[in-house]
Formats: sequence, C-alpha cells, structure tokens
Amino acid sequence: MKEKLAAAWDRVREQRPLVHHLTNYVTVNDVANITLAAGASPVMADCAEEVAEITRLSQGLCLNIGTINERVQSSMLLAAQEATTLGHSILLDPVGAGASALRTRAARGIMEAGKVTALRGNVSEIKSLLKEDSHVQGVDAGDCLPESTEEAAHWAIAASRSLQSVIAVTGKVDLVADAEKCFAIYNGRPEMSRITGTGCQCSALAAAALAAGSEPLIAAAAAVMAMGLAGEIAYSRLQAGEGNSTYRNRIIDAIYHLSGQELAEGARYGIYG
Amino acid sequence: MKEKLAAAWDRVREQRPLVHHLTNYVTVNDVANITLAAGASPVMADCAEEVAEITRLSQGLCLNIGTINERVQSSMLLAAQEATTLGHSILLDPVGAGASALRTRAARGIMEAGKVTALRGNVSEIKSLLKEDSHVQGVDAGDCLPESTEEAAHWAIAASRSLQSVIAVTGKVDLVADAEKCFAIYNGRPEMSRITGTGCQCSALAAAALAAGSEPLIAAAAAVMAMGLAGEIAYSRLQAGEGNSTYRNRIIDAIYHLSGQELAEGARYGIYG
Amino acid sequence: MKEKLAAAWDRVREQRPLVHHLTNYVTVNDVANITLAAGASPVMADCAEEVAEITRLSQGLCLNIGTINERVQSSMLLAAQEATTLGHSILLDPVGAGASALRTRAARGIMEAGKVTALRGNVSEIKSLLKEDSHVQGVDAGDCLPESTEEAAHWAIAASRSLQSVIAVTGKVDLVADAEKCFAIYNGRPEMSRITGTGCQCSALAAAALAAGSEPLIAAAAAVMAMGLAGEIAYSRLQAGEGNSTYRNRIIDAIYHLSGQELAEGARYGIYG
Repeated sequence: MKEKLAAAWDRVREQRPLVHHLTNYVTVNDVANITLAAGASPVMADCAEEVAEITRLSQGLCLNIGTINERVQSSMLLAAQEATTLGHSILLDPVGAGASALRTRAARGIMEAGKVTALRGNVSEIKSLLKEDSHVQGVDAGDCLPESTEEAAHWAIAASRSLQSVIAVTGKVDLVADAEKCFAIYNGRPEMSRITGTGCQCSALAAAALAAGSEPLIAAAAAVMAMGLAGEIAYSRLQAGEGNSTYRNRIIDAIYHLSGQELAEGARYGIYG
Repeated sequence: MKEKLAAAWDRVREQRPLVHHLTNYVTVNDVANITLAAGASPVMADCAEEVAEITRLSQGLCLNIGTINERVQSSMLLAAQEATTLGHSILLDPVGAGASALRTRAARGIMEAGKVTALRGNVSEIKSLLKEDSHVQGVDAGDCLPESTEEAAHWAIAASRSLQSVIAVTGKVDLVADAEKCFAIYNGRPEMSRITGTGCQCSALAAAALAAGSEPLIAAAAAVMAMGLAGEIAYSRLQAGEGNSTYRNRIIDAIYHLSGQELAEGARYGIYG
Repeated sequence: MKEKLAAAWDRVREQRPLVHHLTNYVTVNDVANITLAAGASPVMADCAEEVAEITRLSQGLCLNIGTINERVQSSMLLAAQEATTLGHSILLDPVGAGASALRTRAARGIMEAGKVTALRGNVSEIKSLLKEDSHVQGVDAGDCLPESTEEAAHWAIAASRSLQSVIAVTGKVDLVADAEKCFAIYNGRPEMSRITGTGCQCSALAAAALAAGSEPLIAAAAAVMAMGLAGEIAYSRLQAGEGNSTYRNRIIDAIYHLSGQELAEGARYGIYG
C-alpha cells in the first residue's frame, strides 16, 4: 500500500495535470500555489461563457463552493456536466454545506449534474449531503462521529456508498473511504485550523492527484496524508515568533519538497473495511 | 484602563466569535488569517440568497466596501439589517468613501440600513460620511485634522456624535472615539502603509473584538493598538533583505502571539474628552 | 541605455503613481503588494458605476483578464475608454487569450476600445491577438518562437507593429519590443513558473513604470528586468526547505529593496533592431 500511495503522489509531478478550479476568492491564491507546489498546474475560470472550453483543456476539475453565488453556481454545473462527459475526475469541496440552504442545494446540485469522483469536507458538511432518510444519517445525527475509529471508518464506508463518491472527511482523525475500504489517517497538527484554507488546499491536492489518473481512493488518501504531513514538517520548522501566516507559507513549501517516498514513510494510518 | 483593554483583547480568544465578513477580494485572505490569529473565526459569504442565514450563525458582522459592486452592495444591506435585528455588532470599513459616488453612497446606505457599531477608515473616508451641512464637516474641510492632538481628538468625538457610531480614524496618530471620549494612539510604523490591507486587517480585528462582546470604544481601541503594536513587533523582527511581503506575514504572526497583557504594556496612548 | 533603465525604475518611487487595476482574484493581493513594493499605489475597482471615476483619479491603468466575466469585461471597456481619453497609459495582460474564445475576444475588444500602451503575456497569448491574416502570424504558427534570439527579436518587432503596442513576451528569454527595437532579456529563474502570478506581477510592475511617465519601451523593459532580477535575488536567499510560497514573498521583498542602479547593474540583455 505504501508503494501505491507514493506512486499516486509522484504521479502528479510526472503527469503535471492541468486542473480547472472554480473556487472561493478567500483562499484561491493558496490553492493555486499548493497545486503548483505539488507539480500540477491550476487554471481558474468561472465565466459560464468559457467554462466548458476550459474544462476541455484540463485533465481534472475542482469545485469549491466557499463563496458561491448564483453566477458561479451556474458555471459549476456546466463544468461538472462537461467534465463528466469527458470522463474527467471531479473533486467537490462542499464548504459550508449544511450551514445555509444555498450551499446544501448547490453541493447536491453539482452531484446531480455530474459524476463527483471525491468529496472532501468536515463531518457536518458531508453529513448534510446524505439524504435525510438515509440509514447513514439516521445512525449518526449531529456533527460527531463514533468515538471508536473502527466504527467511524465503517460510517465513512456507508456514507461513501450512499453518496456514490470517495469521501475524505477531515477532522481530528481524517477518514478517506470508498464503498469498500477506509483509511483512518493520523497526520496533521491542530494548529492547521488556525490557517484559513487548509481544507481548500487539501481538496486542491486531492484534485491534482485525481487528475493525474490514480485510483480515486488512493489519490484522495495520498493527498490527505500529504497535507497532514506537510503540516507536521512545517510546524517543526517554525521559528520563535512565527504564527499562522508564516505557517501557511511553510506548509506550501513543505508540499513543494515532499516526495512520494517521504510521504510513504511519514504517513500514519490504519485501513478498515 | 489598561486592564479593560487587555480584557477586551483576551476576550476574543475566550469567546472565539464567528465573524461574518462581506469584504473585498484584494485583502480577504489576510483578513481571514488575522481574524484567526486573533482567536476568532471568519466566515465569508456574500450571496444575497444566504447572507441573512450566515449572519444569524455569526456573532458579529464586518462590512468592507473595498471592491464593492451592485450585487455585493445589496447583500451588505441585507446583512446589516439582519445583524441589527439580532443586536449584533457591525463594523463598517468605508474603503474609498469620498473617492467615488458609489462608495460614499454605499457606505451611507449601510449606515441607514443597520446600526453601525464602529467605523474604521482614514480621515478622508470618515469625513466623506459626515453630512455636508454638519458643523463637524464645516470646521475641518479637506483631508487634514487639526495639528494639535487635543483638537483632533475633540473633532473625533464630535464626528462620532454626528455619525452615531464609534469611529476609528487611522493615520499618523490613530483616533478612536465615541460620543464622550477619544483615544489618541501612537503605536504603528510608517512602513505598514507599504503593505496592502493593513487597514482592512485592523478593521477585522475591531470586528472580532466587537463580536466578542466588549464595550465598543474599548474593543475598537484595543484592536487599533494591537494592529499598531504588531506592526512594531514585526518590524523589529525583519531580517536583511525582507520587505513588505514578509512584513505582512510577520504582522499576522505577531497578532497570533499577542496577549492582552502584552497589548496593555505596549500600547502608547492618551485619552481626551 | 543602462541610465535610462535605472531612471525608469527610480521614477516609480519618485512619482508614486496611483495605478487602477481591474484584475483577477487569484493573484490580486500579490499584484497590490508588488505595486507597493515598487513604490506605486494600487487601487482596485471594477464596478461599472464607478470605474471611470477611479480611472480619473489614477495615473495609469492595468487590465488583466485572468478571471474575466461579463460584468468585469464591460467595466474594463469603460476604463480603457476613459484612460485613452485622458491620455493615461494602459497595460493589458491578456491572460489565457487563445485558450478560450471569450478571452481572445475580451483582449481584442479592449484593444479596440482604448489605446493599449503595452501588452505583457506569453507567446501563445500574444500570438492569439495577431490578426489571423497577418504576415507575422503566418510566419510563426504555433506557440514557439524562432530559436535564434535575433530572429525572435525581429518577430517581436513585427508583432509590435502589427499590434500597435509595445509588447513584452515573457518566456525562457523575455522579449520587449516596440516598432523599432527589441530587448532580449536573460534575467529570471525557471522556478518562478512554480509560483502563481509572477506574470501578473510583472505586468503590474510594467503598469507602474508606464504610469510614472517613462517611455513605454523602456518602462516595460525595466519592469521585465526587475521581475527577473528579483527572481534571481530571491532565489539566492531561499533557505533549506523553503519552496514556492516563501519564494513568492522573497521576490516581492526583493522588489521592495531594488534600486535603479542595482537594476542597471543586474540586467542582462541584448538589443536588436
């Protein structure tokens, strides 16, 4: 498994995929730079008039609804349709789904318009996308997961089945699941939550790994491990007086230097299912 | 007074308020990171369809018209109305008011739609919001303040009365006034003006301190002192060859580590009125 | 020539021009900070209602179509018309022209609406703006330039004539040409392409130098040299473990400290034509 994870990570630098992003304006610069750090290339274009053309030039799609509005929502649907037609991977980051009706509806609309390959969000965002009557939702109401990692992993597998997508649920322990198997990943630092957009950046890494053509579960898991590991490496390099702004830079810098072998050596995880 | 200022600053980390920002796309990432550095959480959402919902989830509102357009202007009015209904604090940064008719009108419209708790801007922005026939405007035409700090402080108190809001007028000396009292604050470095968005970031700190529930005058004064002090701390840490981009990071880093006690010890100010 | 280049660079700090930017939301913060680093001031405003007013307050215009949409496209036309009426310099960065019909049309529309002083882009962007039937396009199909620098320089002079604008074509060797003369510039580092927005930042420097009132060819050449030289200086300062995010900061920092004399001493170029 370590070899597969390393290969998925290295494949981004080998394939250098162009990833089309429709994303929020808060973290877009960091998203672009971390995509470049990983070895892929970002293209941001959100005007309905050109969005399908840009999707066709790209190898993968990354949709992030963090500052969605009606104009960009329409463009996301067009991009999702085009990417699906082309067989491109689609990563959806449903930022704030569950927090407003617009966001929940926007995320669900994208999932209906196209074939989402992988979702990355926190537990409340992912839960808000599960059908209200679903068994998965019924069992685990609220924003918590079972305390036992094994039970949480089985929840994630069930959620992945229900959503028909790989899911990456990031939190204290990160869960990356498909319909059969779940990685529970222990990398990362709590201080990462004091930086805006570490979630968006993790999604961008997953989109890059998917666009490079690796198996979706492995691509998403490698991206989540890489982000966590970069958080650890960057934290160890912080000097006296440095805070969240420099930490942000050092995380992207760590991704820039991270090799597949280092990822495989530094990843801490269990596999369930 | 020092204890009150320290308490207002520490209260942000204790309360961890969620602050709803409708802001410009130039400095939004720094605004989010400095909000997190101070211990609050930012949420950016500007679509009319969801803006009131997001305001309801939050504890305070921060409106910044730096890159305003008609769509976002409408959303700001909805957010201001909702925040006022809920009794939330509203910080308005009237970027460029006076420089274009749109901006002056947008800022005034927000002040009519909602109860603005505090305004932060430079002197020309604040002056543009004073009614044309007001006594305050008549006395001090142009973009200058009286040279005597005492006279400037009394101008600020009069302006605060006229605007029915705490005002933070940042410049060579920063003035933070309510209807009774004015802080003249001497912290800061001239090099801060070579970084884009230090004003926006100061507004974000004030919005966070207001959302944490402190008395508006004290909250705004503590934020202005914190920003100036962080500019001093960060400047002292600059190494050879470092310029405005690294200085920006080091200022946010300094906020990340600044305690209420350090703020009280480092603040340099007089009180008038 | 070295004296003219140094003078064009120093003139930005002497004149401190206000530059009106309508630009993309991916790199806008870096664009603002590098403009300040160079000694100019940026103002970002893209609402049709105020765009002409802001153009009138400024000394130069910088249009970047990196994330264009219909709303901003209209505003760019208004700004270009107003700047032309006022005799202001206009720098156009036709990001992605040739990659989508919208972008090619948007860039051409701006060139028809106003008098573009200088264009900065990569070779495929610049080529997409040449009339399809033009001799220049016919000779050099595709995204490549002649391998011989001399031939490439003569292509650039012909392209400048056809486009009736100074052109700065950045790539492995940067070409900056007007209708008579071409600088071939050898500064820069390949690692700069791993940072988002180094092209946008180079355009912002050119816009600042133009707005300061220097001769367009010299202003554009000085900006391209400054950007390349800053990339070299910043690279030499990178420490172990630092990657593209810190490199971005160090480049802006290097611009902050770069003097006209250092630019003249560090610039490596030939002149053709």
